[in-house]
Order: sequence, then structure tokens, then C-alpha cells
Amino acid sequence: MNDARTHFYQRTSGMQATAELQLIPLGAGVSVRPQIMRVITLLQTYDLLIETHASGTNIEGELHTILAAVAAVHETLHAEGTIRIVSYLKLETRTDKPPTLAGKRL
Amino acid sequence: MNDARTHFYQRTSGMQATAELQLIPLGAGVSVRPQIMRVITLLQTYDLLIETHASGTNIEGELHTILAAVAAVHETLHAEGTIRIVSYLKLETRTDKPPTLAGKRL
Amino acid sequence: MNDARTHFYQRTSGMQATAELQLIPLGAGVSVRPQIMRVITLLQTYDLLIETHASGTNIEGELHTILAAVAAVHETLHAEGTIRIVSYLKLETRTDKPPTLAGKRL
Amino acid sequence: MNDARTHFYQRTSGMQATAELQLIPLGAGVSVRPQIMRVITLLQTYDLLIETHASGTNIEGELHTILAAVAAVHETLHAEGTIRIVSYLKLETRTDKPPTLAGKRL
Repeated sequence: MNDARTHFYQRTSGMQATAELQLIPLGAGVSVRPQIMRVITLLQTYDLLIETHASGTNIEGELHTILAAVAAVHETLHAEGTIRIVSYLKLETRTDKPPTLAGKRL
Repeated sequence: MNDARTHFYQRTSGMQATAELQLIPLGAGVSVRPQIMRVITLLQTYDLLIETHASGTNIEGELHTILAAVAAVHETLHAEGTIRIVSYLKLETRTDKPPTLAGKRL
Repeated sequence: MNDARTHFYQRTSGMQATAELQLIPLGAGVSVRPQIMRVITLLQTYDLLIETHASGTNIEGELHTILAAVAAVHETLHAEGTIRIVSYLKLETRTDKPPTLAGKRL
Repeated sequence: MNDARTHFYQRTSGMQATAELQLIPLGAGVSVRPQIMRVITLLQTYDLLIETHASGTNIEGELHTILAAVAAVHETLHAEGTIRIVSYLKLETRTDKPPTLAGKRL
């Protein structure tokens, strides 16, 4: 059987990734800045490199840590009252060299 | 300490989600159909509802299972030779009613 | 000088594209179905092939027609009262063969 | 009749927008930096505010100018040899205040 918990526990590979997360809370009104600020503070509790910009947050770190952080962001915002969340995650991995945010800058 | 494995183990919440995954292998040439077919077969091994369409794959299931599947897709494709992967994941969760693909159709 | 109108007028190339549009109205509450239904009816007034699915709308047609439709959707929803709109557009073009939604299905 | 050129010409509204563009050339190998650099230089020929970051390029300007630039990027890269292009465009507009990149930074 596939079980998410067992699966993550067994397969954690140390694979590095870069990502971009943008999160939109629905039903929170036109301004969503409080929720976005909360996303940033949550991401900062993880062992991840975080770079905010005008259209989202760039992230560098271990693939499973990034995904754990994304899940925790959804769960925590819901626990704190957000009713509906849509998030957009770009995820990049590569085997020819370590993926880094620095390496992707122009 | 934040550890992705511990975190996932402890926090698995049973939270349901809907998602859309689109994956692009880079360095695999203009046609990427073999890798996309492999993504589908990998997703189908999970306890997830899967609906393919022309621009990606819609997914319904437990949030952590979806994220475990996405991680496994990256890891497996790399293990099978894909050098660079960019994936786009839309993730929706809500607390007012269970999120389902059926409920999102027009 | 670069002027969007002149530019479009002069450069329209007949280039075909496939696309996926997902639109999120902010400040419209948790349920956004009325706005999404309006997006579909607006897209249907264009010379485009439209396929709705649970995570967005797939589109096939001339590149500039697709972009004109996206602009009109933003403008019309705002004119009808939506205060803030975030849309996500995936756009695919290729020169080796005509891009079609049918050709992208698995 | 809906005609993209006429439509754009007639409806150009001066509506301001913020956007993020990420473009992936397929069939260009693992490294896509030359094409990405070309995208930036093309965007810079438009009357747009451009901010590059590790996961894409943030853009501020008139909605139709942004869309004209995106179309020109696809057309120019194809004309210069890229066979297949997938681009991701986030587009934000709002009527309660002018949308700016500065206003979206945290």
C-alpha cells in the first residue's frame, strides 16, 4: 500500500530543489497581506533559503522539506481561520549540478 | 527541530486537497510524451483520483499523499535518467466542504 | 516606440497556440463560481476551442486571439464589479507541428 | 466577428497590470540560459518595468503591452530557432488602486 507517511519516511533522499510558492487565500477579502506575511514566517521556521519577491517566494532546500513546509502552510492557515486556499508551487530539481537560487539568477 | 520526515509523520492530518500537476522534463528533446506517460503511471500507484487533460493532470486525495506522489515523481524520473525537471503544482484546500474534482467542474 | 496596439496590429502572425487559463477573483468571497462561469461565456465569444476541466480552461487557437480574450476577460470582470483578479495562463507554441489540445491528450 | 487585431485596437483600455513570466524552451537542452537572456532583452524593449528573479521575471505596465510583449517573445524565439515554448504568465489587475510591483513587495 502507498501511505504518504511511510513513503516520506522511507524515501527521503536528500534531493535538493528550488521552488517558488505563491498562495492565495479565498474569502479573505481583497487584501491578503496578513496571510502572505504569515506564510513567510512559517516558511522561515524551516531549514530553507527564502527569498520573497513581488509575485511569490523563492525557496531553496531539500525537496521533502519544501513539500512539508507547503503542507504545514495550508494546515496552519486553515487552523487559523482561512477557509479556502489556492497555492501555486513551481518545483525544480536536477541531477547535473545542485539546484540553487543563486544559479538561477541572471 | 524541523525535519521533513518527522514533520510529515507527526502532522499528517488527513486534510483533503485537489491539485493539478504539470511536469516538464528539460534536456529530453522536443517530445516529452514518454516522461509524461511515466508520471501518470507513477501517480496511479497512489491512493489518489487522477484525471488527465490536455494541460496537466488533475488530482484529488489526501494532501500529504499528493505531495508524496509529487516528490516520488521527481525522484523516480531522475533515477530513470531525466536530468532536469520543472513541475507546476496547483494545490487547493478548503475547510467549508470537502474539496473534490467533481465539485470544481462547471 | 513600442505601442501595444500598433504592435499587435503589425505583428499578428497567425501563430497557433494551446493554453490553459485559470482565473481567481479576490474579494468575491469563498465561492467564485459566478465569475468562473462568466469567464467561460466570454471565452466562447471568441474564435477559440474551449475545454473546461476541474482546474481551469484549456484553449486552442490563434496566439493573439487567446491573449485578446484574456485581456477582455480581465477588463469585463472588472467592469462588472470584480475588484481584484489574478489569472494564470500557460501558453504553448511550437514550430514543428500545429499545437492542438487533441495532440496533447494522453 | 472576433478578430484579435481589431479587438486589441478597439479595446485598449490603459488598464495597468502586474505580471510574472516564466518561459521554458523545449528541445533546447538542459541549459536554457541563452533563451532566458533573450526573453529579458526582448521585454526590455517595451514600455514595461522589468524585475528578474530566480524563478521568472516580474513585470509592471499596461495590460495590453504586457500581452503584446509575451506574444512577441514567443514569435521572436521561434523565428530565431526555438522549436517549442511553454510559458507561464501570472497576471494581476485591480480596480481599487493601481497595481504595482512595489506595492506587492513585503
